[in-house]
Amino acid sequence: MTTAGTVRIAVDAMGGDRAPGAIVEGVIEARKAYGARMVVVGLPEAVQPLLRNHPGLDFVGASEVIEVDDPPLESVRAKRGASINVCARLARQGDVDAWVSAGNSGAVMAAALLLQGRLRGVERPALGAVFPTLAGGAVYYLDVGINVDCGPALLCQFARMGAVYAREILGRDRPRIALLSNGSEPGKGDWLRREAYARLQQTGVNFIGNIEGPEIFTGKADVVVTDGFLGNVAAKMAEGTAEFLFQVLREEIPRTWTGKLAGLLVRPRVQQIRARFDWREHGGAPLLGINGVVVVAHGRSDAHAIASAIRAARDAVTGALVARIQDSLLDQSTTEGPRATQENSPVSQ
Amino acid sequence: MTTAGTVRIAVDAMGGDRAPGAIVEGVIEARKAYGARMVVVGLPEAVQPLLRNHPGLDFVGASEVIEVDDPPLESVRAKRGASINVCARLARQGDVDAWVSAGNSGAVMAAALLLQGRLRGVERPALGAVFPTLAGGAVYYLDVGINVDCGPALLCQFARMGAVYAREILGRDRPRIALLSNGSEPGKGDWLRREAYARLQQTGVNFIGNIEGPEIFTGKADVVVTDGFLGNVAAKMAEGTAEFLFQVLREEIPRTWTGKLAGLLVRPRVQQIRARFDWREHGGAPLLGINGVVVVAHGRSDAHAIASAIRAARDAVTGALVARIQDSLLDQSTTEGPRATQENSPVSQ
Repeated sequence: MTTAGTVRIAVDAMGGDRAPGAIVEGVIEARKAYGARMVVVGLPEAVQPLLRNHPGLDFVGASEVIEVDDPPLESVRAKRGASINVCARLARQGDVDAWVSAGNSGAVMAAALLLQGRLRGVERPALGAVFPTLAGGAVYYLDVGINVDCGPALLCQFARMGAVYAREILGRDRPRIALLSNGSEPGKGDWLRREAYARLQQTGVNFIGNIEGPEIFTGKADVVVTDGFLGNVAAKMAEGTAEFLFQVLREEIPRTWTGKLAGLLVRPRVQQIRARFDWREHGGAPLLGINGVVVVAHGRSDAHAIASAIRAARDAVTGALVARIQDSLLDQSTTEGPRATQENSPVSQ
Repeated sequence: MTTAGTVRIAVDAMGGDRAPGAIVEGVIEARKAYGARMVVVGLPEAVQPLLRNHPGLDFVGASEVIEVDDPPLESVRAKRGASINVCARLARQGDVDAWVSAGNSGAVMAAALLLQGRLRGVERPALGAVFPTLAGGAVYYLDVGINVDCGPALLCQFARMGAVYAREILGRDRPRIALLSNGSEPGKGDWLRREAYARLQQTGVNFIGNIEGPEIFTGKADVVVTDGFLGNVAAKMAEGTAEFLFQVLREEIPRTWTGKLAGLLVRPRVQQIRARFDWREHGGAPLLGINGVVVVAHGRSDAHAIASAIRAARDAVTGALVARIQDSLLDQSTTEGPRATQENSPVSQ
């Protein structure tokens, strides 16, 4: 186990809408802010010129790039020298403690699975996201889109891994786990929700029942469990509605002179409020269930979002997230409260 | 077929959070605005005192009430004198052309099914909602929560019925039908979406492919098709996000004196904008696939929302919505464009 000062993190400079410029800027920002040892991975001709004035950053070359629309598994297999594969290989060899990519998230998952493997007992890795709550807190929401077809057993595994994330990373003593559904009563939901509800009561997590979408923002739950299809549609609906409303307000309010004046007066405050709901502040979250720390950043990440994703990777390493998840999956009782550190976990080396 | 002036509409005065007061007020508002002949249905002791100064309203007594938490099918069978059953019976007997309820929506569907029946070829009736778009238009979204477990064939039927709604009620010549999914590419979605996508291409509707949640507001599609579980969660997510943001803005902006001033200046405009996204403006929508016009209003309906729901019922009657849906289901080619009126439709009497 490494200590905070020596955490080594590889970053895929080729992934994301604004790669490689914004990615390298994010690495520079994170290095200043968090002091981790950073390894930038990418095509030499594209990335090395950006690193010239930053001798403190390491560079590892890649020979190709997996594009955002490439078929994940096939491209990970075919493009062996791709930056995503190089990152995963550095992690498997122990050259870095974690890696971060804003690229093709399916390919990130495929590379992590093929090269680093899953933890014992993990059916499929999951990807969560941290959302803000009304009171200024945070809620962990998974799966956010990696696992599109899920059964009830998989949702229970998401609940278990999410509980560990909430405890180790968000600092919740006894995380409250809720199931995203179309009503709060036990009988609500489609067959998958009804079946998962019954099983979650026997999973050993602190299951508080169904939760409706808007309640996520109230902070009623610490972890919200959903399949990746519903989770993705619902998350985009929230994000899209917010963007839509801010756009309408920005366009419509300045149409009168009082509106123009009011808009000027209030703009800094509205921008502060918007920032609180900005996904870039929670720029990435680790894949749960992988034998290593792999952080998937938003494809639209700018430098600040990349820095946040790097912080998430560092927190996962220093919080020994992977070992804790393995403990939880091997010992069902451990999700109910804090426990002693297990130094010789089979997966923490 | 009745003409606009003589449409007769029964309204369940016992359904909804604010029944019976707000319901009766809504009936009064609608009668003034739309001139339909209104029949108020409810418990005599609760409703008749409210009607004393309104001699133009008819009253039909009910002997009991189905509560919002009652099991739908069982309570419709057990409470034969319930206001919902009385409304459905009035419609079956031809005493009214349509009925409206803000009560238990499952019970409304059960009563409509048991007493009025479904159209030929309808597997399960659907319930849609009209959402506003950025440009000030409207999009029809179904199913919004009645059918929780759906197969691909049912989604195709929703598409067909939704196309008729968009043509006859929203006035779209060749309604663009989209499938709610987690991405716009054809391969996106869970198994239900992938299967429905393939079938929708052969359904004879103007299928434009997958649509992501936020795109609904852009007006890219006229009809958005989804199963009732996803549809309900996604709709609540949009509604909840909007309420949440307005609440945060209202609480946080007045914390500084410039914010207070700006808030006062801008309040009337913000309220106008909010009203555009207010579900109460689109207070109800008809159950599609029932042999009759039955409008389900939002459980939180106030008087204005009830009046909007009554308008929706009137529009469905004058637009011969039921006959058009039957035509469309019996003749697959009819969804592709405008067609001649079919005077002797088996269901239009």
